[in-house]
Amino acid sequence: MSGSEIERLIQLLARLPGLGPRSARRAALHLLERRDALLEPLTRALTQAAESIHRCGRCGNLDSSDPCAICSDPARDAGLLCIVEDVADLWAMERTHLFRGRYHVLGGVLSALDGVGPEDLGIERLLARARPPEIREVILATGATVDGQTTAHYIAQRLAGRGITVSGLAQGVPMGGELDFLDDGTIGAALAARRPL
Amino acid sequence: MSGSEIERLIQLLARLPGLGPRSARRAALHLLERRDALLEPLTRALTQAAESIHRCGRCGNLDSSDPCAICSDPARDAGLLCIVEDVADLWAMERTHLFRGRYHVLGGVLSALDGVGPEDLGIERLLARARPPEIREVILATGATVDGQTTAHYIAQRLAGRGITVSGLAQGVPMGGELDFLDDGTIGAALAARRPL
Repeated sequence: MSGSEIERLIQLLARLPGLGPRSARRAALHLLERRDALLEPLTRALTQAAESIHRCGRCGNLDSSDPCAICSDPARDAGLLCIVEDVADLWAMERTHLFRGRYHVLGGVLSALDGVGPEDLGIERLLARARPPEIREVILATGATVDGQTTAHYIAQRLAGRGITVSGLAQGVPMGGELDFLDDGTIGAALAARRPL
Repeated sequence: MSGSEIERLIQLLARLPGLGPRSARRAALHLLERRDALLEPLTRALTQAAESIHRCGRCGNLDSSDPCAICSDPARDAGLLCIVEDVADLWAMERTHLFRGRYHVLGGVLSALDGVGPEDLGIERLLARARPPEIREVILATGATVDGQTTAHYIAQRLAGRGITVSGLAQGVPMGGELDFLDDGTIGAALAARRPL
């Protein structure tokens, strides 16, 4: 490899998730060999994103407007609040086109191991927001991990007695899941939550 | 997902090798959440690379100087020319620190299927360059694929009778390769090229 500019570019590309040192090299070459078709458009897109994309002051989503398009959409149910760990989870939820409420992005989960407490996640801000009559139901959509479920449990406890319905995503066999390939925990949860057919 | 700027960024990131639509989304979020640490440095690195990295007029390498650092390094053997398919292969060769000659980057291989002929690879330019006494030996380091070997064969034929030594990379069992996991072609080549121990 030659040129410290190329080295620097490779180092930065290697810090993207999904790219290692080897694929970052390939990506850098791909960019340098497609200057007009890719390198310059990507540079412009990054510059524009840096200028225009900000965190929504209300829900924590990333968008070009603040409040974000979801928070300011009058067609969405303002009384239904879905709590997600991060913006990636918000996007995943949006891709289903099934949720028509609004969001609150925690920006992480409680973790004793990593020293993440309620104050780091701004849970007081969430608690201040989640009050009736503005909010009718809170859906806790944190991950089905130990920390995700601990976080959901903590928030559910803090919301208790406010007259808000607090629910969590169902756990069970994923769509297309074959039992043989599922872990014991998932099968156990699906069995415990079995439903009449 | 919200914000056309984010959509555009994801689309462009998805065109990098090694990133699909899903990992491009993750990469875009990773960038937007690390504005100072990653998004802005990467934008600067791309801008600098676009400004300063050019193709070497002599060998086809990508570098910040033209002729490139390899072509202008007086410590390298100017009489030894290694022919590679692309800059990625040049980099791979350089990582071995074993080759001390210079390069000629073809920018592809001959391919009847893809309609790539000698004129598309600038082989006349290579033939004009590869003349004694300036060039003593040509090493054909195109890939061990049908097209790579066809290209090597074609160049070797065109160089015949010039008083230049023309060689190719050895084929055989790769370092750490277990026979059971190798294809028949590789084992056959290794057997045909067996050497006394």
